[in-house]
Amino acid sequence: MKTYLNPKDWLRLTERPSVKKSNLNKLVNEVFKAVKKDGDKAAKKFSAQFDGVELKSLQVNSKTIANANKQLSPALKKAIKLAKQNIEKFHAAQNEESKRIETTPGVTCWRESRPIEKVGIYIPGGTAPLFSTVLMLGIPAKIAGCKEIILCTPPNKKGEIDPTILYAASLVGITSVNSIGGIQAIAAMSYGTKSIEQVDKIFGPGNQYVTAAKQMAQSIGIAIDMPAGPSEVLVIADETCNPSFVAADLLSQAEHGADSQVILCADDDKVVNKVLIELKKQLKVLPRKTIATAALKNSKAIVFKSLKDCMLFSNAYAPEHLILANDKANKLIPLITNAGSVFVGNYSCESAGDYASGTNHTLPTNGFAKAYSGVSLDSFVKKITFQELTKNGIENIGPSIELMAEAEQLFAHKNAVTIRLKNK
Amino acid sequence: MKTYLNPKDWLRLTERPSVKKSNLNKLVNEVFKAVKKDGDKAAKKFSAQFDGVELKSLQVNSKTIANANKQLSPALKKAIKLAKQNIEKFHAAQNEESKRIETTPGVTCWRESRPIEKVGIYIPGGTAPLFSTVLMLGIPAKIAGCKEIILCTPPNKKGEIDPTILYAASLVGITSVNSIGGIQAIAAMSYGTKSIEQVDKIFGPGNQYVTAAKQMAQSIGIAIDMPAGPSEVLVIADETCNPSFVAADLLSQAEHGADSQVILCADDDKVVNKVLIELKKQLKVLPRKTIATAALKNSKAIVFKSLKDCMLFSNAYAPEHLILANDKANKLIPLITNAGSVFVGNYSCESAGDYASGTNHTLPTNGFAKAYSGVSLDSFVKKITFQELTKNGIENIGPSIELMAEAEQLFAHKNAVTIRLKNK
Repeated sequence: MKTYLNPKDWLRLTERPSVKKSNLNKLVNEVFKAVKKDGDKAAKKFSAQFDGVELKSLQVNSKTIANANKQLSPALKKAIKLAKQNIEKFHAAQNEESKRIETTPGVTCWRESRPIEKVGIYIPGGTAPLFSTVLMLGIPAKIAGCKEIILCTPPNKKGEIDPTILYAASLVGITSVNSIGGIQAIAAMSYGTKSIEQVDKIFGPGNQYVTAAKQMAQSIGIAIDMPAGPSEVLVIADETCNPSFVAADLLSQAEHGADSQVILCADDDKVVNKVLIELKKQLKVLPRKTIATAALKNSKAIVFKSLKDCMLFSNAYAPEHLILANDKANKLIPLITNAGSVFVGNYSCESAGDYASGTNHTLPTNGFAKAYSGVSLDSFVKKITFQELTKNGIENIGPSIELMAEAEQLFAHKNAVTIRLKNK
Repeated sequence: MKTYLNPKDWLRLTERPSVKKSNLNKLVNEVFKAVKKDGDKAAKKFSAQFDGVELKSLQVNSKTIANANKQLSPALKKAIKLAKQNIEKFHAAQNEESKRIETTPGVTCWRESRPIEKVGIYIPGGTAPLFSTVLMLGIPAKIAGCKEIILCTPPNKKGEIDPTILYAASLVGITSVNSIGGIQAIAAMSYGTKSIEQVDKIFGPGNQYVTAAKQMAQSIGIAIDMPAGPSEVLVIADETCNPSFVAADLLSQAEHGADSQVILCADDDKVVNKVLIELKKQLKVLPRKTIATAALKNSKAIVFKSLKDCMLFSNAYAPEHLILANDKANKLIPLITNAGSVFVGNYSCESAGDYASGTNHTLPTNGFAKAYSGVSLDSFVKKITFQELTKNGIENIGPSIELMAEAEQLFAHKNAVTIRLKNK
């Protein structure tokens, strides 16, 4: 970690570590083409080839899912249920009531939400079974009323899926769990196969292969949640922070992956020094020490003149997670323009949002917080607009429409009004 | 127009006329690369090359914008102001109040909206000056509080922009109007040049070049409104419709472009026949007859057993515009699952929504209504989530987070909680 001071450096400091952009398009194209043509057969072939696992059936049967329940401790199940309850409360409150607006007498407009009927959820495999992401995507999908919630996740070499993932899937009401990962999983959900239904939108994190495949899915007309990049946190601390808390938060981001980035902003170099001392201490005993150490190489501690300057820098950086590790939240929150999710005060650690506070942990990374929101109930619905005009309504706005349509040289548009006005 | 009856044909009938997918990627790549490197110089070079117009300055000066006012009739200005007022009312009502939810005692979560700071609006040139789209995109951007609203539109061969576009831009408060179109306009807004600021999100319709350029913008991290396709309408009519109104609505969609598609669904072939007779009559006297005739070749009239079946077919088709030309709206609206914008009853013509009812006319085409909403106030903001935990809050959910983090093998995540729980 380095210390900077000069505001001229701001823009440069907002740059993310450059990710080697491998050109996977050729491979992605090939897999998509094969899955489109040969469906399950191709999907299974790629799973054998890439993941070294041979499967008879892609779909996990209900007995296996039901049995997963037995493999979790009662305490863990209780914890997952608490998280579910909080995520449900917060996302259900995002349901918007339909307001009818009479814009002109006789002209009423409103919006109604409808669920996206079929959604796909991708859960990565690898070292950690990310069952928390099953909750974060499955719960709002269920609240929205999505009919089909298709989950794909790669099995281990024995062809098994982690029981915590199966338990979470069953708890939230996933309609179909499939043992398949990587490009072939995204391709299967994009085109549909005999086992895996075609979906309208695909959600979930993944490695570079999955990210490239989701981009391909988007280019052929399947919606995706948001563009993906490595995870990141920015902490704004002052003397009112608890340095050991801040160090723990920085490390909990750093352990995600070697490409994670953590930024500490403070208005005082003493604060930074205290945090760095704690950081070294805590790093030593961390099981994922190697990953965290690599991530810390991409990371920065920056001292600014004031907390306000820290906030302005944070807005330029647009962090996925922003922790306000100080007691000035009331002054800082109105200054926030760009962030994915904000953790207010010393007791609001990022882990809380990652698992159980109730907010969603699928958030915009890589500066995308400038234009994208994190996943919410809105991500699983469409808002359809409606308008109802009475005879009086078209009389009131019809003449204006005629003039505007004429000015745009769209005479059939004009005529659709004229013919109604004449029919008084 | 053809008449079908067999429900087996449904899926096939939802297919859009195949658009010849020209591979523009090479050209788009070239323009983006040049504009990234040479900024305005490259942008001007491409405008000369593609649009045959040589410009000293890309930005339209304030005097020209102010003078546009004089070139519009008072009646047209009044019409535009009425439209503005209705669009403002409906979009301002979409502002969502921040609800604070206590998910567990001591754990409070909420969302706050923040404007996307810099947005770009593309307005196509061509035969008709689409000033209505300036209203539809500029007004919600202004309500959202976007700081920079950059408009790009191609000038004519004399280097001029239609005064109605300039008037609308000035009326809604566009911050910068630029005489530039095509791929180079999208590239300029994506990278930023000396004249044109880099934006966070690009909105607006366009031809295949603009569509390909927006896809490129998206791939380099600039958000876009939605994927684009030819415009379309689906009308559900029964004996309570007015056949001449329905014919006028079908034609107002058909005149948009030769690639437009119009679908008439009815529960009775007599209704279809009556509409077709009216259609022929009205088509004869239409200025854009050639375009409309071409579009009608892609179009279909389909007779179903019931209005409910019409509605089910409409959901499978997922139309951009859905007109309920009958008096059964109360029964049909709850059945709608996929549509961009809905026009309820015989007096609600599509032109009303295109210009002045208050709803947005930037809508998902090509079946994208299955997963995408039309443009709304939401399109111009991010919703940032917040969580604030008290000491008591972390005590209540902390032990659950510890268990879940451990189950995901993320020990630093666990430690961020443990260290806070110990600090009681």
